Amino acid sequence: MQSFNNKLVKTINQKKSWLCVGLDISPENLGESSLNLLKDHCKKVIDCTRDIAVAYKPNFAFFERWGSKGYQWLEEVVDYIGDSAITIADAKRGDIGSTAEQYAISIFDHLKFDAVTINPFLGSDSIIPFSKYEDKGVFILCRTSNPSGNEFQLLNSPTIPLFENIASWANGLNINQNIGLVIGATRINELKSIRKISPKLPLLIPGIGAQGGNLKSSAIIGNSTGPAIINVSRGISFSGKMSDKDIRDSALNYNNQIRNFINA
Amino acid sequence: MQSFNNKLVKTINQKKSWLCVGLDISPENLGESSLNLLKDHCKKVIDCTRDIAVAYKPNFAFFERWGSKGYQWLEEVVDYIGDSAITIADAKRGDIGSTAEQYAISIFDHLKFDAVTINPFLGSDSIIPFSKYEDKGVFILCRTSNPSGNEFQLLNSPTIPLFENIASWANGLNINQNIGLVIGATRINELKSIRKISPKLPLLIPGIGAQGGNLKSSAIIGNSTGPAIINVSRGISFSGKMSDKDIRDSALNYNNQIRNFINA
Repeated sequence: MQSFNNKLVKTINQKKSWLCVGLDISPENLGESSLNLLKDHCKKVIDCTRDIAVAYKPNFAFFERWGSKGYQWLEEVVDYIGDSAITIADAKRGDIGSTAEQYAISIFDHLKFDAVTINPFLGSDSIIPFSKYEDKGVFILCRTSNPSGNEFQLLNSPTIPLFENIASWANGLNINQNIGLVIGATRINELKSIRKISPKLPLLIPGIGAQGGNLKSSAIIGNSTGPAIINVSRGISFSGKMSDKDIRDSALNYNNQIRNFINA
Repeated sequence: MQSFNNKLVKTINQKKSWLCVGLDISPENLGESSLNLLKDHCKKVIDCTRDIAVAYKPNFAFFERWGSKGYQWLEEVVDYIGDSAITIADAKRGDIGSTAEQYAISIFDHLKFDAVTINPFLGSDSIIPFSKYEDKGVFILCRTSNPSGNEFQLLNSPTIPLFENIASWANGLNINQNIGLVIGATRINELKSIRKISPKLPLLIPGIGAQGGNLKSSAIIGNSTGPAIINVSRGISFSGKMSDKDIRDSALNYNNQIRNFINA
């Protein structure tokens, strides 16, 4: 069986893409409050970027806000993406082993995602029920993009920051070659440290666009010793006037920039 | 407006109950794999314990494993509980501010839960979108019951363990009198530390039964300076032969024990 990390690298090479398109389709950003219009817009984003995106990352919160109808929408979205790109469940789950087993059934068996984001706070019990699926990927939150990510992630614990402990610990969990890390594009110095500690682990880098992350440094440092994919959500889905052309041009532009940075 | 923490204390006093009934209804434990039979059993657990439980805590993973149909079940469960007890969404969400806003809409506005469990790893940005709902409760994971909870929660960061940092930080977030902490019943020494740091915050204590936590110490130490409710899931839902009587007797027995410990 092909490991997830191999599959990711192959897909990057085939599509010449490092671009993950985040699907965070909100009525506030679309300016429309009907679920059907949100669904249409989500399909449009996928249709316009299918050949460009190496991965799609639906953000569960934006579906769950609609309850069971939103969950049904999530099921439809994974189905609609199909095999055209890697699907990453941005669910940030984290629970004790017996509960994590149930979440893994939800995300991998039921929804059929290729990968998931997981919160490390509960330790390895919360990771293994996911990573035991050898062909599925597990991106562990390491250093988040949000301002208050500093509050615990930078605490020396006891001699190195918590996020460095997490990167080092994640290496040990990578038995099936399917562990990756999430690090915000707003954290370039920490990205350097993480690439030293975990040179080979795939990185998922959000925080470009609305959050003000650094695209150039993320692309170059992220891909220095292993693969790194860069997530853009609002900057693609709600680009310009949200026409097909605006969405597609934005995705092409982001991916071309990343490719040029990496190849330079 | 009544604060959540006041509402919790009032409900404890009215019902003379400290028992939170966890709803983790799995086909493996029920021995039946049809969703309708699981739904029936869940209703049965609620009907048998309505006057006994101070709170119900549906564990989202056990609903999400069924996808949109499971989410619909979750909607039905909150509705079925109604006003007979406090409802706690055991969702353990944790995300950046703009995403946490969407999760809060999901859990408080759409599903209409009274309270939620939240993972602290992303800091205060991930809490405030929930705690700004003044009448809703936010139980922050502090020290979890699972074996690998030790991996990060006990790290000195830098001079006191991470979970003590979290307890102290949670006090500062309790502006609306609606912040609580989750601490596993398998962690009695840490419970003592937490009660020193956060004497007044409500505690939600899982880990009794299958996980082997200590009921007596949890009840007494937990309730020494503030309110603490004790969660039991499998030990009630799947008690004995799972008859009405078995389920009701188990709930009564747990709550009587807790009451006697506290009153002794």
